[in-house]
Amino acid sequence: MRFLMIAVSLAVLGLAFVGPERAWAQALPALSGALIIEKQGSFFLGGREQKSTTLAPAKFSAPPGTITVDQVYVRYQTPPGAKTRPNIVLIHGCCLTGKTWETTPDGRMGWDEYFVRRGFSTYVIDQAWRGRSAADASTINAVADANQPVSKLPPVLAASHEGSWVLFRFGPKYGEAYPGLQFPVGAVNELWKQMVPDYARGLPIPNPTVPALSELVKRAGSSVLISHSQSGIYPFQAAVFDKGNIAGIISIEPGTCPNAVGDMTPYKTIPIMVLFGDNVSGSPKWGPILQGCRDYISALNTAGGRGQLVVLPDIGVKGNSHMLMQDLNNLQIADLLTAWIKKNVDKR
Amino acid sequence: MRFLMIAVSLAVLGLAFVGPERAWAQALPALSGALIIEKQGSFFLGGREQKSTTLAPAKFSAPPGTITVDQVYVRYQTPPGAKTRPNIVLIHGCCLTGKTWETTPDGRMGWDEYFVRRGFSTYVIDQAWRGRSAADASTINAVADANQPVSKLPPVLAASHEGSWVLFRFGPKYGEAYPGLQFPVGAVNELWKQMVPDYARGLPIPNPTVPALSELVKRAGSSVLISHSQSGIYPFQAAVFDKGNIAGIISIEPGTCPNAVGDMTPYKTIPIMVLFGDNVSGSPKWGPILQGCRDYISALNTAGGRGQLVVLPDIGVKGNSHMLMQDLNNLQIADLLTAWIKKNVDKR
Repeated sequence: MRFLMIAVSLAVLGLAFVGPERAWAQALPALSGALIIEKQGSFFLGGREQKSTTLAPAKFSAPPGTITVDQVYVRYQTPPGAKTRPNIVLIHGCCLTGKTWETTPDGRMGWDEYFVRRGFSTYVIDQAWRGRSAADASTINAVADANQPVSKLPPVLAASHEGSWVLFRFGPKYGEAYPGLQFPVGAVNELWKQMVPDYARGLPIPNPTVPALSELVKRAGSSVLISHSQSGIYPFQAAVFDKGNIAGIISIEPGTCPNAVGDMTPYKTIPIMVLFGDNVSGSPKWGPILQGCRDYISALNTAGGRGQLVVLPDIGVKGNSHMLMQDLNNLQIADLLTAWIKKNVDKR
Repeated sequence: MRFLMIAVSLAVLGLAFVGPERAWAQALPALSGALIIEKQGSFFLGGREQKSTTLAPAKFSAPPGTITVDQVYVRYQTPPGAKTRPNIVLIHGCCLTGKTWETTPDGRMGWDEYFVRRGFSTYVIDQAWRGRSAADASTINAVADANQPVSKLPPVLAASHEGSWVLFRFGPKYGEAYPGLQFPVGAVNELWKQMVPDYARGLPIPNPTVPALSELVKRAGSSVLISHSQSGIYPFQAAVFDKGNIAGIISIEPGTCPNAVGDMTPYKTIPIMVLFGDNVSGSPKWGPILQGCRDYISALNTAGGRGQLVVLPDIGVKGNSHMLMQDLNNLQIADLLTAWIKKNVDKR
């Protein structure tokens, strides 16, 4: 049944029987058995030196000094043979970190490992000022020491369980799940542990993560950028900077798509997919965003671009939440993305 | 020369020719070639629900709700055959995250991969309130909205380049390196990018990371806890909680050792190594700490314990900084630890 559903989905997506495929995609490795890693590691992108006289509250008497902020942490794994394929870059959303893509709340394989097992070099980032990417906390101490007024405190957002339940479309109200929901709500407390304070509202636009992504694709080579929610727009912003090594963009339930009446030039040569789950149209938050993305993809294609908007229930895949990379059918959705990449993205 | 040095070191440590070794240690896998992973993933330990009315500053109008804090992020990798060996748990220090143990600032293999390649299941954590382990930022917003006085702001410490240079014993003053220093100072800017704001001074003692470590060893089974600097004391505190599955403690340049005049009962059955690098005795910061650790190990052994204090230059290994897991000879030091584990730690 699941196989049939996916087969139908591929056909509806126009992905089945598409003729000769990319050489690299002839035989994708399997998802089970030992995982073979040719190389793995972590490093930082970007970073800016910042002088501070308030590295700690005065009572801890820290002398003035320099810190580094705005850098972006990246962890990667490269399986054998990955050089023939584009890289995958996984970019998490609001109030979350790169953990988004790792083991799911109920302990299943995440997309970080899925893509490695499918033969792709896979990069997982923590956005600037979040997770392993340092925030600048100097102002907090400056306010504590009355060197700055409280109005200078950085705005920081913590997402609540109650609000996230509805925003992530687990159900119409907290504790109540949509029928057929794919998110493993029995393990939702493990998702709540993934959430961290988010300083993004106090950061410049574009977020420092965006030039870091440009640096990453320059350094790592041809890459498909997979973004989510808050970061949905980042790959598009990175393409405006420099689209050189952006081999494809998959934007999953972006907080916003690029403006449909804007200049399409930066996006025209990049294969782009915007993906939404279920229960979107009726959502006061997500319905208008979906419409904005429809308008953008339409404008992009009118301008000669290569955009595709996929709403999963339209291709027979039902019950997906906003956290679809953690949903029960997360690997089937990843297979849809891999099929799309196989068809649309060349190693450049 | 390097081989000779290590051979001499092993002999001085009393680790060479020690008779029959543990069965699991007969043949340690090599460090090069493809890395084979039987299982990898990430999860959280601990966590506490916290109600808040200030999840964002009032201007962003976040309704009251619940967040989860105090949890500890863990990433692990398990190579084939690891079940016959104790696990390794790597616990970073002040102002840093689990990145400490990953790729070094100059791009070499870190201890996270070293121990996996040597056949150990290896767990890397982010301390509570740091990195991928969420801090509670509600009070910052409460102060911003004048619901709380500025005195309630959480104390947060950012370590400066200048201060860390001396504290980490790269040299006697900022920009000046000790002769023969093993830290790759040419890449020091990449170390600075690893540093994140540290809320530990505002947290209870023991730090919420400590019960999380107890939970980890209970869940993962027999483990050697390797701590560093600020976290140096945590494994000892965890042993006071429950020493059941703590198979060994390696405390690297701890901020403090347990009190030498305290009760040794919690530590007596655990093999313990406390390790220091070079240029320690003359350091106003580290000299007294080293002396305190000498006193503790002496008291422990007098009470019938199994403690060992190793100061690397005393066994012919010179030039190591406080960040010795990132030093140029980091894998040689890891080999010393592996030899100590082979000799002293049984899989329980």
